Order: sequence, then structure tokens, then C-alpha cells
Amino acid sequence: MKSPLLHELCEPFRGLLGTWKGRGEGHYPSIESFGYVEESTFSHVGKPFISYVQKTRDSVTDAPLHSESGYIRPQEEYLAELVLAQPSGIVEMHKGSIESSKNACVIYFESIDVRVTPSAKEVTQVSRLIKIEGDTLSYDVSMAAVGEPFQHHLKALLKRQA
Amino acid sequence: MKSPLLHELCEPFRGLLGTWKGRGEGHYPSIESFGYVEESTFSHVGKPFISYVQKTRDSVTDAPLHSESGYIRPQEEYLAELVLAQPSGIVEMHKGSIESSKNACVIYFESIDVRVTPSAKEVTQVSRLIKIEGDTLSYDVSMAAVGEPFQHHLKALLKRQA
Repeated sequence: MKSPLLHELCEPFRGLLGTWKGRGEGHYPSIESFGYVEESTFSHVGKPFISYVQKTRDSVTDAPLHSESGYIRPQEEYLAELVLAQPSGIVEMHKGSIESSKNACVIYFESIDVRVTPSAKEVTQVSRLIKIEGDTLSYDVSMAAVGEPFQHHLKALLKRQA
Repeated sequence: MKSPLLHELCEPFRGLLGTWKGRGEGHYPSIESFGYVEESTFSHVGKPFISYVQKTRDSVTDAPLHSESGYIRPQEEYLAELVLAQPSGIVEMHKGSIESSKNACVIYFESIDVRVTPSAKEVTQVSRLIKIEGDTLSYDVSMAAVGEPFQHHLKALLKRQA
């Protein structure tokens, strides 16, 4: 199938498109620190949104760990919304902004609403900072959860796959 | 990679696993009725959740229409939760139940929370009824949106792909 043209609203996010692999680590007061390997894909179909799906595995045992999936909704003026769901029973809704140049961009999403299912752990606030320089993507996720104050939770360094 | 064993909590949902293709139609007082072709996949990684991703295309022009993605979280006693995100700026959180027999099952999810981003259309309530008989999946989605009362919105008939 012919690849669709990128929607003009998605243009600032062009550098994000593709599949990324690498390693990350997680920290939080309520859990043991852990390492993970990650594969994330950002794709589009020509409409004014970008699909996101992420999967991680334990960096020691290779057992599947986490997944999440959702959509970036670019708005006018380098602003965007993000919606996503996690199998841990969390849905997130963010507003964000992007600073974009030819080979680099910085995207910062702050939650405007985080909801959890009755059986899930409490999460009340999330931020997601994504930096891209050429073929390297790094991110940092902070959150307020299980009664702990808002703080760093995850960071990872991924490489663009050919 | 060796296929992981299905988590015992997911066992009632075994009949859902796989890729499904078919046709659907949408109706709502605020829009023109429309037809679509759909591909949906339900998959697992051995953990106590089932990943869901759906994509639809216009049945006349073949242009991409809708997507959604999320996770079913089976609980004890044939109960489940569902979280999902839509590129239209909607996140849904459901509680559900499943009646399952060897070759058939009926899954019914009712929203416990629906949230939309600032730029999205208002949706306040969603239900999702899924029926599987052998290699046929049919579903019916109802919703309350844009001030209209809760009512039928989508139905589709899909066939399991080999």
C-alpha cells in the first residue's frame, strides 16, 4: 500500500515517526528499581493524529513487562494532546507542546486527567518529556502515584530502527 | 519467539484472541450513516491482560477512518475491566462480564468513566457488546454523545483470520 502523506498538523512531529529500540530504567519509592528493554513505534495514516504503541521486557529475564498505547493529537501552533491507555488499568489525557527543528525536537506532555480502574493502583499525575536528536530518542516520565509526591519514574534511551 | 502460555485469568477470553476482519456500519443522530471495513486484533503476552487494537477504513473510498487501542484486564469470576484510547481524543474505562462456553462467548462492557480532551467532542457513556460464535465476531457499540441520549452507534460482523 502506498504510504500516505503526513497530515500538515503532524509535520512538527515528523522526527518521531518510526520504530525505536533501546533500554530504560525505572525507579519509584514504592518499588524496587528495574531495567527494561523497549520497542516503541509512532506511525500515521495521513489523518491528524499519530499512533503510539510501546512494549517493554525485563532486561534480565526477557519476560514481558509493560505496554501502553495511544494517540498524539496535534493542534494548531505546536500544541498537542495525548491520550493513552495502559494494561495496568490507567488512562491518561495530556496537553503538550513541541519545539521542533530540522534534526531535533523536544516534546513535553503534562497530564490534565489520569484515571484508574477500580482494581488498579492510584496514579494522579504524569508528565512525559521526549527528546529527539537525529536517530536518538530519550524520554523521562514522572508521576504522582500511590500517595507519593510527583517525581521521576522512568527514563530510557532509544535508537531509531532502519 | 515461543508463544507464551495464556494467563489463567485470560482463559475465558481465549476465543477472542486473533485477528478479525469484516464490515460494520455507524449511525448517530448528529452524523450521516456510514459503512466501514475493519481489522481488529486481540493478543496476549502471557500476562493477565489482552491487548486490543482496531483500525477501520471507509468502505467506499478505502480512506482510513477510525482507530482505537487498549487492554482488557480480566478479574476473578468472569469479570473484567477495559481501558482504551481513541485518536478522536477519548479515553474509556469499563467494567464488564463474560459468559463463555466452548465455541461461543458474550462479553459486555459498560463504561464507568469516559473522558475527552479539550478539543474533542463530548462523549459521556459507552457500552460495548461483543459476541463470538466459532470464527464469527459481532459487536454493538452504544453511546451518549454531543447531547444525544444513550443509543446504538456501531455494529459490525467480523471473521477470524487464519
